[in-house]
Amino acid sequence: MSMIAYLGPKKTNTHEAAIARFGRRAKYIHAPTIDDVFYLVERRVADYGVVPVENSLQGAVTHTLDRFIDFIDTPVYIHGEIQRPIRHYLIMKRRWRLQDVKIVFSHPQALAQCRRWISQRLPHAIRREVDSTARAVWIALHGSRVPAAAIGRRELASGHNVKVRARSISLELENRTRFLILGLGEQSIPGRRKNKTSILFSLKDKPGALHDALVPFRRHQLNLTKIESRPSKRKAWEYYFFIDVEGHVSSLRMTRALRTLKARTTHFRILGSYPIGR
Amino acid sequence: MSMIAYLGPKKTNTHEAAIARFGRRAKYIHAPTIDDVFYLVERRVADYGVVPVENSLQGAVTHTLDRFIDFIDTPVYIHGEIQRPIRHYLIMKRRWRLQDVKIVFSHPQALAQCRRWISQRLPHAIRREVDSTARAVWIALHGSRVPAAAIGRRELASGHNVKVRARSISLELENRTRFLILGLGEQSIPGRRKNKTSILFSLKDKPGALHDALVPFRRHQLNLTKIESRPSKRKAWEYYFFIDVEGHVSSLRMTRALRTLKARTTHFRILGSYPIGR
Repeated sequence: MSMIAYLGPKKTNTHEAAIARFGRRAKYIHAPTIDDVFYLVERRVADYGVVPVENSLQGAVTHTLDRFIDFIDTPVYIHGEIQRPIRHYLIMKRRWRLQDVKIVFSHPQALAQCRRWISQRLPHAIRREVDSTARAVWIALHGSRVPAAAIGRRELASGHNVKVRARSISLELENRTRFLILGLGEQSIPGRRKNKTSILFSLKDKPGALHDALVPFRRHQLNLTKIESRPSKRKAWEYYFFIDVEGHVSSLRMTRALRTLKARTTHFRILGSYPIGR
Repeated sequence: MSMIAYLGPKKTNTHEAAIARFGRRAKYIHAPTIDDVFYLVERRVADYGVVPVENSLQGAVTHTLDRFIDFIDTPVYIHGEIQRPIRHYLIMKRRWRLQDVKIVFSHPQALAQCRRWISQRLPHAIRREVDSTARAVWIALHGSRVPAAAIGRRELASGHNVKVRARSISLELENRTRFLILGLGEQSIPGRRKNKTSILFSLKDKPGALHDALVPFRRHQLNLTKIESRPSKRKAWEYYFFIDVEGHVSSLRMTRALRTLKARTTHFRILGSYPIGR
């Protein structure tokens, strides 16, 4: 039976994403940080790890990307991705009315995703960032002396004296999060579904360097679906690039494109080739 | 006399950056959020605004970039940039020793920048994120019942019973932050110093679109110093791109390159052309 490490605590979106992929019968272990999930996979405590990598409203989860830069030789590869819709609920004690709420607690990402709703419906409430939605709910229900609410998944609310606003409070149309499945070693057999390949590289600082790095994909008609830049941390304003390209690493076109790209980089690593999540 | 709005509270890095550029004799107003700084400039309450846009270790300040996407027609342009070295200090009550510290409070960026130092020197301390370094210092000195410390600028510590660790605790070599100077209308006269131009655009979803967007800069030998992608918030996995290019918008080469780029975009806006900060 597989052991799955995920970014905890329990009942958060990452936990739900992991269950959606690996089922209720797998064994799960929750880790307090993204770094710990990588570590549990590296030490073979877990067979797979699940971490968030991108939200359709808030962008990249930089901790996940930076872990690949900080440990560029990690034996961890991306084995797959999971996409999940995110729905936020306002959770508070039953005895408070909406207009009583003085403080709204949540994870910074959730607060940002519900910023418009809070501005309109709770214009006088203070927003307080805490490190997980689970903790926010605990504080709002048990830890706050003034009327408070929390933003989080519906499943975090339990008990008779708890009120949950029935509708999702994220006003944006498409709130989705993409999670990565981490595993040891590279998966080299293409799946039946459409695949993509994730690559990490850095470039020499010269005019046109980024353009030149993208030329091979253009030439081989490979579609770049994503580019993300992150600081190198060694020199100010020097970057690493993460790109996602449609296609499997074992295809002839990809092999040729990557060979040309590699020759133009100072660092180069294939992070994984895996089926595109739905 | 100019009125300068900056991301507050007082004595934080943004305040210091604003003073470094506009001097002690200008009038200052501190705003609680990045959005408020834009708003004060838009409403002509302030002549200029100062907000952080990028840190050399942690990357983009996404709130600043996203404000340009959310209000793409804002009359606010970038009029300049300021680069400042960031030094973090550990601030605590004089009566505690380092090994007493149970909680370290700070802004998430500062905690991230000192992550390595905290892991090594305060391995058992809990890290707690709060919304400013100024608030972190207040909590550590006055609001915490257990031995606590805060990470922040030296200037935040005052009083006789306060201890400041003498050396900067960010272990990384180059910790610098880049701030933008915001103003109304486009500055169209090139400065004597080397200039750069910031552009915001989105592309049709077709293979090679990003490569094709960069071709005009390559052709006109204009150096791209930065690319950042941010979610469009209208459709999942659709992006806006922020790029910085060396050169002034009024130069012939830039005019030509931008004309070609514009024809390939779905949204296009010049954010400003201004001297490169030192």
